[in-house]
Amino acid sequence: MGKKRSQIWGNHLSNPPDEQNVLFCAGRDVQEIPMADQILLPFDIWTNRAHCIMLHKQEIISVNCLEKILTGLGKLENLVEEGDFALDPEKEDVHINVEDFVTEDQGVDAGGRMHIGRSRNDQTACDMRLYLRSSCLKLFFAVRNFASALLLQAEENAESVMPGFTHYQPAMVTSWGHWLCSYTQGLCRDLERLAFALSLVNRNPLGAAAAFGTSWPIDRALTTKLLAFEKIDFNTLDCIVSRWENEAQLAHSITLLMNHLSIVAQDLIFLSHPYVGVIQIEDNYVTGSSIMPQKKNPDFAEVIKSKASLAQGMLSGLLGIQKGAMSGYNRDTQTSKYLIMDLVRECESAPVILQGVFESLIVNHEKMKELS
Amino acid sequence: MGKKRSQIWGNHLSNPPDEQNVLFCAGRDVQEIPMADQILLPFDIWTNRAHCIMLHKQEIISVNCLEKILTGLGKLENLVEEGDFALDPEKEDVHINVEDFVTEDQGVDAGGRMHIGRSRNDQTACDMRLYLRSSCLKLFFAVRNFASALLLQAEENAESVMPGFTHYQPAMVTSWGHWLCSYTQGLCRDLERLAFALSLVNRNPLGAAAAFGTSWPIDRALTTKLLAFEKIDFNTLDCIVSRWENEAQLAHSITLLMNHLSIVAQDLIFLSHPYVGVIQIEDNYVTGSSIMPQKKNPDFAEVIKSKASLAQGMLSGLLGIQKGAMSGYNRDTQTSKYLIMDLVRECESAPVILQGVFESLIVNHEKMKELS
Amino acid sequence: MGKKRSQIWGNHLSNPPDEQNVLFCAGRDVQEIPMADQILLPFDIWTNRAHCIMLHKQEIISVNCLEKILTGLGKLENLVEEGDFALDPEKEDVHINVEDFVTEDQGVDAGGRMHIGRSRNDQTACDMRLYLRSSCLKLFFAVRNFASALLLQAEENAESVMPGFTHYQPAMVTSWGHWLCSYTQGLCRDLERLAFALSLVNRNPLGAAAAFGTSWPIDRALTTKLLAFEKIDFNTLDCIVSRWENEAQLAHSITLLMNHLSIVAQDLIFLSHPYVGVIQIEDNYVTGSSIMPQKKNPDFAEVIKSKASLAQGMLSGLLGIQKGAMSGYNRDTQTSKYLIMDLVRECESAPVILQGVFESLIVNHEKMKELS
Amino acid sequence: MGKKRSQIWGNHLSNPPDEQNVLFCAGRDVQEIPMADQILLPFDIWTNRAHCIMLHKQEIISVNCLEKILTGLGKLENLVEEGDFALDPEKEDVHINVEDFVTEDQGVDAGGRMHIGRSRNDQTACDMRLYLRSSCLKLFFAVRNFASALLLQAEENAESVMPGFTHYQPAMVTSWGHWLCSYTQGLCRDLERLAFALSLVNRNPLGAAAAFGTSWPIDRALTTKLLAFEKIDFNTLDCIVSRWENEAQLAHSITLLMNHLSIVAQDLIFLSHPYVGVIQIEDNYVTGSSIMPQKKNPDFAEVIKSKASLAQGMLSGLLGIQKGAMSGYNRDTQTSKYLIMDLVRECESAPVILQGVFESLIVNHEKMKELS
Repeated sequence: MGKKRSQIWGNHLSNPPDEQNVLFCAGRDVQEIPMADQILLPFDIWTNRAHCIMLHKQEIISVNCLEKILTGLGKLENLVEEGDFALDPEKEDVHINVEDFVTEDQGVDAGGRMHIGRSRNDQTACDMRLYLRSSCLKLFFAVRNFASALLLQAEENAESVMPGFTHYQPAMVTSWGHWLCSYTQGLCRDLERLAFALSLVNRNPLGAAAAFGTSWPIDRALTTKLLAFEKIDFNTLDCIVSRWENEAQLAHSITLLMNHLSIVAQDLIFLSHPYVGVIQIEDNYVTGSSIMPQKKNPDFAEVIKSKASLAQGMLSGLLGIQKGAMSGYNRDTQTSKYLIMDLVRECESAPVILQGVFESLIVNHEKMKELS
Repeated sequence: MGKKRSQIWGNHLSNPPDEQNVLFCAGRDVQEIPMADQILLPFDIWTNRAHCIMLHKQEIISVNCLEKILTGLGKLENLVEEGDFALDPEKEDVHINVEDFVTEDQGVDAGGRMHIGRSRNDQTACDMRLYLRSSCLKLFFAVRNFASALLLQAEENAESVMPGFTHYQPAMVTSWGHWLCSYTQGLCRDLERLAFALSLVNRNPLGAAAAFGTSWPIDRALTTKLLAFEKIDFNTLDCIVSRWENEAQLAHSITLLMNHLSIVAQDLIFLSHPYVGVIQIEDNYVTGSSIMPQKKNPDFAEVIKSKASLAQGMLSGLLGIQKGAMSGYNRDTQTSKYLIMDLVRECESAPVILQGVFESLIVNHEKMKELS
Repeated sequence: MGKKRSQIWGNHLSNPPDEQNVLFCAGRDVQEIPMADQILLPFDIWTNRAHCIMLHKQEIISVNCLEKILTGLGKLENLVEEGDFALDPEKEDVHINVEDFVTEDQGVDAGGRMHIGRSRNDQTACDMRLYLRSSCLKLFFAVRNFASALLLQAEENAESVMPGFTHYQPAMVTSWGHWLCSYTQGLCRDLERLAFALSLVNRNPLGAAAAFGTSWPIDRALTTKLLAFEKIDFNTLDCIVSRWENEAQLAHSITLLMNHLSIVAQDLIFLSHPYVGVIQIEDNYVTGSSIMPQKKNPDFAEVIKSKASLAQGMLSGLLGIQKGAMSGYNRDTQTSKYLIMDLVRECESAPVILQGVFESLIVNHEKMKELS
Repeated sequence: MGKKRSQIWGNHLSNPPDEQNVLFCAGRDVQEIPMADQILLPFDIWTNRAHCIMLHKQEIISVNCLEKILTGLGKLENLVEEGDFALDPEKEDVHINVEDFVTEDQGVDAGGRMHIGRSRNDQTACDMRLYLRSSCLKLFFAVRNFASALLLQAEENAESVMPGFTHYQPAMVTSWGHWLCSYTQGLCRDLERLAFALSLVNRNPLGAAAAFGTSWPIDRALTTKLLAFEKIDFNTLDCIVSRWENEAQLAHSITLLMNHLSIVAQDLIFLSHPYVGVIQIEDNYVTGSSIMPQKKNPDFAEVIKSKASLAQGMLSGLLGIQKGAMSGYNRDTQTSKYLIMDLVRECESAPVILQGVFESLIVNHEKMKELS
């Protein structure tokens, strides 16, 4: 980044560009998207741990076998954390990769028993719920931090008198503080939505096997406790048929969040416009133009608006997948994994960027008063 | 209905068609859609009552004036309930119709003061929240009743052994009771979603005026109490900017519900198919064919699948409306009213119909066992 | 309209509001939506004429019988044109209404033979294609007229120097004429799309019967000629299975058109903004505010943007309906009729309104130059 | 592939799995997505060639300079074709990568002049049109081949009598040949749509620069000819504002194609079902189950249905991006590049797979007759 890029469009800008924002705006032009199952690796390790501990407690595998499995999984976890483990594409998915690793490392007597009493269906379902839970939490805190930052700004600007607009036209008098609080009120609903999505996803599907349970004497209460799920999703068929629904629930929460952020983005574009000028976005969040040095382009705001549409499309895709499906596993649901992962990846830093923009925003109180 | 229609496609069917199902399937071919604001009339009367009582308590209007207004509103309510009041299209919307009725009935001294301290913006917002609240509740009870009916059937069929399917193919053995419980587990999440949508919508926007509050000394806590809202949405700007969000929230809940019902529908189509035959849909829920007397067409199931797509489209429309909007009222949000009303009207009887279908469903235990 | 309404928000506006625009913006608040099949009436009469003439030429019905049918249909057409015929909701759909009218008017010997060699499936398919064809043409001419009007304005403003914008920011110099031509270039593609949609829809499905043809010796070439279709859609199964596709094709054309118009709308909002002021929208296209007399709200522009989202949602609904359907008629497709009719009704006057806005637009050349 | 995988689910299947189908179904679990601009590399090289040849013909750069540029581009093209060139993520996008390569290889006197008279805006627009044109063509031929293969099968099965279905129920008698022809008739419209999308995209945007042209004396007719575009898109502003529209046009064509293929997929699932059995899918296109050896799962059909929803969502995202945008370049359009590339990549082999399935399909004529 930095040097080369700034030569192209940023020489007149005083601050170096915000690195996270540059990445956010750059998109996928020169960026690869990793294998989907690479993201599931840490979650699959936990699903395996919980399942195998349970197998041992239920006297299905020996303590020696469990110890070997946990040792193998621990080694793998270290490799993953240090970036030293890449999925082998010859091995279909994360589940086979993990089992094969343990088998190769600890012998087939250990690795070969990991799959007792489960199916790849409930394993994927469980991994995905852990991933969704983690994504909900990450987004929750990002939104909360942004909302808190807005409240601080609102307090400072409680008396910053400015025009309120209806139909884009200046209408009645308001304050910048009041305006910022309206964002916060919306973001609080986004937090409620994320918390609600979390409560729906935080239920254990492990033990559903291929949708019809298993004849092994498994203990679903134990895996629920070990994986910190709130409760069991008892009906096994529903656990598998619903392999799109938690994805769609989180996608819905993100889509409404992105819609809120797109309104914030448009406000920033308009209020910082040279013809309006009641606020000014800091140089590290704008791009310039080599041939038009006066320009300060709020690319991040445009990208946020665009991703709000992207989110809506991804949600739309997710909602169509199981429409009119027959109960039981159908491979149709496979696509839901990619859609939600893409959506989370594209949108998760949006509230973080906006927080940075607002924390460094320059408020032109004179101009605000003048237009009121 | 009845006579004429049955001559066309139903002579070989033993039971008369279920009236509600006929209406559900008939669609809009020979059915008009009423004015949107006709649906808001009862809610607008309540918004007016709460607002005017508050105006009086705040000593903005006299007790005499309030009495006249309440008398006028009471008369109007009676007319509406008896179907004797039609909105005058010359009067733009429900709000002006109601104010004009009171003015004509009780004089301008009364009717003319109803609009003090409010705007049509917060009035519409308030009417819509009452409508959405009412729709949430109606749907909640319809889904609950359907889920309860399924549980009864599940209990009776706990031992009805049949094949479970994956990839549409017969896979492992399950029971019809287990299958029905999987529907219930999904419907319970739909109930959670409807309850959550209710909790978000059940907040008072009245007092937001045109988005920037009012200089009149209004008491928002009182209208909150009078209209049985859970709390106040304090920030007035957000109250107006979010005039699409509760609509989208309910639309989301309905879309996921309809997706569940579309899976139930496809299961019914497949399992009752003459080539499968483990269940049979009662004659009053199917249509026949004058030239193919053996046919029993599950039209309702097809219509449900279709409306699942319709719901998804309506939600999609709702989500796009405010993307990239500027804060403050913009007329863009007007469309959100029609989208959610259409969606509710099209889908609200789907769970009721399915309840009827399941309560009269014939289970072929012999065939189930044979295929297992 | 007029009087009462203008008292509320328009006293300071010098021109009376444009009637069509008022209607366009008013939406469905105090407006009913007619029965869907009311719209199909004139088309169903033509489908019947073509079919019955063919039946006679094929010597399936007598000349006397044909004459009676044509007389009955002619009478009905007169009633429809004079607004004196309302569909009887007891008679399921337009087809039965029309047949019953002829039967009652001309006797069962005539009316009773109209349905020979066809099914309501291909009859609806044929009616809908005639409706879609007519809608394509109507939209085509509205867009063409708007594009022509823009070209006239462009010619007059070829030298009107003004800033061009990128990222909403003033960038390089351009002219208002150049800007208007960019709209025209986009609209020309919309015309190409409408013409293409027309070419796909203008093919005869009549004769497909219930999807598998008929054993009657019908002549599809003759009905093709009589109904001015370009050619026959030979495969009968496809004629019925595709009863969503032409709808989706037109919806796609409209959605892209509305997207173009939504960009025009946003340009109008921004460029006519009091803080920018390079153009001014005439009073008869804006609304005001009783308490803020300076306001000139471009409601039509907001409604157009909103309907662009509505269009996208309707298209989305249409695209989901037959996803994963089984070949053959399924009642799922019924919904497609309402979706496209709603879409056409909501959007068809958008280009007409915009034409009026541009033909009366005031261009502030001074301000344009000043900002350049 | 092969060995390991077949041990898991395929030992009872007689044929080895079709490699392309395995890849099609595997999705992104263990597969990365390359940088978006990697796909644009060959097109960017051509855009550069055409632009620089034109610069020389217009006497803006010397013959010597042109020669160096073409030499550099030629070298780069060889590297790209041999897989020996990877984009440097430090260099923002494909355009800078290519210019920098030429500069480093041929000196700044050559490389430094390539950007005269253009902007990255029109360069990206041009690259994307070349990419879209190429994708249209590739899809066109895949669909044509599939349609041709179906016609061959149809001819062979013209007399294969079987039931036709309405409402999923056996209705009237038809033939397998008739059924296959109905697919072909739909696919022919897909070909028309792809050809139409091609005709819209095959117009030259190069020379639009940043939307307002350039003062350099460029010759757009020449680059049009060199890049084999059908004509010039004259208005430069529209060239940039429409940087979502050709993407949406192709996405529309693909979405309708995928809808057709999803119907084919559902037919295959149903007609090959063990309870129906009129056709049988060859072993190399199905998956099995280690614990249920009788199963033959048509995963490809499920994946196709799923991708039809994915397509619809991608289209929906594309349609929302520029809704209500302001004319001129806005970074919102960046996202359109990824959406269409993802869509093409996910769907392009669907018709190829289906062609293979149909060419190896086993038709059970006995069973067909029996059910008729």
